[in-house]
Amino acid sequence: MVRGRISRLSVRDVRFPTSLGGHGSDAMHTDPDYSAAYVVLETDAEDGLKGYGITFTLGKGTEVVVCAVNALAPHLLNKDLGDIVGDFRGFYRQLTSDSQLRWIGPEKGVVHLATSAVLNAVWDLWAKQEGKPLWKLLVDMDPRKLVSCLDFRYITDVLTEEEAYEILQKGQVGKKEREEQMLAHGYPAYTTSCAWLGYSDTMLKQLCSKALEDGWTRFKVKVGADLQDDIRRCRLIRNMIGPEKTLMMDANQRWDVPEAVEWMAKLAEFKPLWIEEPTSPDDILGHATISKALVPLGIGVATGEQCHNRVIFKQLLQAKALQFLQIDSCRLGSVNENLSVLLMAKKFDSNKKSHRFSFTSPSLPYLALSGNLSSLLVPVCPHAGGVGLCELVQHLIIFDFISVSASLKDRMCEYVDHLHEHFTYPVIIKKASYMPPKDAGYSTEMKEESVKKHQYPDGEVWEKLLAAQGN
Amino acid sequence: MVRGRISRLSVRDVRFPTSLGGHGSDAMHTDPDYSAAYVVLETDAEDGLKGYGITFTLGKGTEVVVCAVNALAPHLLNKDLGDIVGDFRGFYRQLTSDSQLRWIGPEKGVVHLATSAVLNAVWDLWAKQEGKPLWKLLVDMDPRKLVSCLDFRYITDVLTEEEAYEILQKGQVGKKEREEQMLAHGYPAYTTSCAWLGYSDTMLKQLCSKALEDGWTRFKVKVGADLQDDIRRCRLIRNMIGPEKTLMMDANQRWDVPEAVEWMAKLAEFKPLWIEEPTSPDDILGHATISKALVPLGIGVATGEQCHNRVIFKQLLQAKALQFLQIDSCRLGSVNENLSVLLMAKKFDSNKKSHRFSFTSPSLPYLALSGNLSSLLVPVCPHAGGVGLCELVQHLIIFDFISVSASLKDRMCEYVDHLHEHFTYPVIIKKASYMPPKDAGYSTEMKEESVKKHQYPDGEVWEKLLAAQGN
Repeated sequence: MVRGRISRLSVRDVRFPTSLGGHGSDAMHTDPDYSAAYVVLETDAEDGLKGYGITFTLGKGTEVVVCAVNALAPHLLNKDLGDIVGDFRGFYRQLTSDSQLRWIGPEKGVVHLATSAVLNAVWDLWAKQEGKPLWKLLVDMDPRKLVSCLDFRYITDVLTEEEAYEILQKGQVGKKEREEQMLAHGYPAYTTSCAWLGYSDTMLKQLCSKALEDGWTRFKVKVGADLQDDIRRCRLIRNMIGPEKTLMMDANQRWDVPEAVEWMAKLAEFKPLWIEEPTSPDDILGHATISKALVPLGIGVATGEQCHNRVIFKQLLQAKALQFLQIDSCRLGSVNENLSVLLMAKKFDSNKKSHRFSFTSPSLPYLALSGNLSSLLVPVCPHAGGVGLCELVQHLIIFDFISVSASLKDRMCEYVDHLHEHFTYPVIIKKASYMPPKDAGYSTEMKEESVKKHQYPDGEVWEKLLAAQGN
Repeated sequence: MVRGRISRLSVRDVRFPTSLGGHGSDAMHTDPDYSAAYVVLETDAEDGLKGYGITFTLGKGTEVVVCAVNALAPHLLNKDLGDIVGDFRGFYRQLTSDSQLRWIGPEKGVVHLATSAVLNAVWDLWAKQEGKPLWKLLVDMDPRKLVSCLDFRYITDVLTEEEAYEILQKGQVGKKEREEQMLAHGYPAYTTSCAWLGYSDTMLKQLCSKALEDGWTRFKVKVGADLQDDIRRCRLIRNMIGPEKTLMMDANQRWDVPEAVEWMAKLAEFKPLWIEEPTSPDDILGHATISKALVPLGIGVATGEQCHNRVIFKQLLQAKALQFLQIDSCRLGSVNENLSVLLMAKKFDSNKKSHRFSFTSPSLPYLALSGNLSSLLVPVCPHAGGVGLCELVQHLIIFDFISVSASLKDRMCEYVDHLHEHFTYPVIIKKASYMPPKDAGYSTEMKEESVKKHQYPDGEVWEKLLAAQGN
């Protein structure tokens, strides 16, 4: 079905000046300009279809990712798309294990972000050629074919190819019903749009009121810069949403391990479901220590948006270091690597002896997501927001529900109400849920006019801003 | 004492075509071209001194690191050197926690390699202005000042600033004698030059004979691509060096966890002191599993050259995942971060109950490094080789002996006999030991003629090579 030889790969540095409004601000990222390295693949096929891929960045440094995409380009140019997706595991490993390039990774940081952008474009093109939205391409794909896209290197001690296949085979049961359920009701979401750290209390209140009116029931607040501010803001938002709705907190890596435990003990009264990124994303054992201390207070630990590859997720699961697992569509090596994490999460039953949320927890009323906490799985609750992360990750989590997890217990996908207008196929949210995309592809395509305007540094928007700054 | 404002930062892409001779080849890096992003800092001070800094790369991708150095440059330009080293912790954090740039790291991969290159140049300049080789600058520095250069973020659960200070204070005792010892005898080294994976058996034999003649007693062999080849090569080298000399093995991340254990069980008869990089450098728990399985066979686990920051080293120590810790002068964030790892290693007594090398181990005769294995510390055995890694890391390990570890038990520094001729102050090896550098600075300066010739792609060497390849 797939066709064409890749004849052109272009990549652009696209930045949105979100820092001007404090959007996206948190304890570690005080002035983010939501940006993307934006890849376009063209083929010599007559259909004229293009593959679009992005990876999300915060402004400065996007040019470094662009440079890394160009370093990867020779692996794609003049290759048949059929050969790439025909041995997708081999192609994945070719990109991630290039004998010279791997030294500057491997499978982490800039080169891995670039890998993600490039492979996101390949998946977009593949889905477009098949005439299906990406989630549907995955749902319909033969399990044997699907596992052949995954690189199991370094994770076979937790998940082998055969085990992955078995999980997918089991997922075939009831698949049709779950697909119908998704099409009818969508995938549940939570909002992070109300409580960025740089927002004033007034703005927070306004946004929170509006979100409640719009039917949102799950809210995330940024914390970690100043304890007294956090207490005031958390009290404000908890009072507004009431005791029954769900509140999550996000520290964006601000704390050391002991500090995380102490700080969160002081915010426990506001009954957060989880504390997200309490410390360094590299600190698996630190997250385990924090989990152990906070779970008895009814607070789970969530992390993932800066976990750089499947090996880190593997260990977070092994160490029981997290209660909520947050995949990211643009930091991991595209769909290929994200699928391996979804499958590990499915396989990885928490040890029944481990202390997880208990029915006697005083905070149980606030665990509004789940009437039944007997599930011992680690629920996947994807990271989204930024530029395009919502557009992409909805495909993965909808596939996860239909073909892997078969559960919505304790599960929800992040949503941020930003920058969707720049996408050709923007997300559709109904009743605080992601409605499954119907257009073919991975929803990665941006409007050409937006790209032109926001290209850095020569797009119209930046020319004006930089001139105003006297640069 | 320090002076001048940084008036210029330049960075160049310098590559040596080592792949043509199979030098540096291993199971994962089959054709490395040893390369560097090479930074030069100039100031407006009248002394005319410049700071030189490198980070090591393998060819392709060096241009990506160069791009990242340029992204960091605004943090240095027009800054007073006095302000930088006066609050070196603050400056370190400014580079590593830039609110926008940190997204494409943080503290890992390309941006961290770039941070290393830039800060190596700052340390070189500082040492030159003080008229001392870097190791001596560190040895003479007041402990309070020294710890003020370190960022303890994310490691305070294992090492606080006060604990670091105490370790350095204790290290003052006997310092003078240890400095004299170093000046007289140097720091013990081992050689990796004999047994790259791409070398024929004939070449291996020749190089091994020559190394024995030159007084080397510790040898490393690359393994991991093919078991039968490994058995043949390991037998060959063990037969040549005899049972009393030390043999180490290096798999360069080739295996999954179960595979590493199985493979090494089959190489145990050749009595390796350690297996280096048996699996992914990110897999802390994997290394712990491998250690647990191999230590009873008398084989330790070594890793570090691709451990991307102090948080990973912290956990490797916490999890008892390694028996030998290998710092790298160009992957960690320069001297600043390496010092924090040296101090953690010093503090981190292995749990006395843990299974480490035992006196009854059948392989004891081969643990030629140590007559007394009662030390419970994890010895630091730095990674070197590449381009300039020997030149740089010798300063760190000599400082470590004089001011921190005060021990040579089970300790040695890697040495590879390559590319030293391109440095203005090349390493001096006598009787298989690194002799302490005497010139001021960090030994990072390359000969301008070498840089010009090997600049990529327009240096003379590459113009010829690329023309011959028809590019």
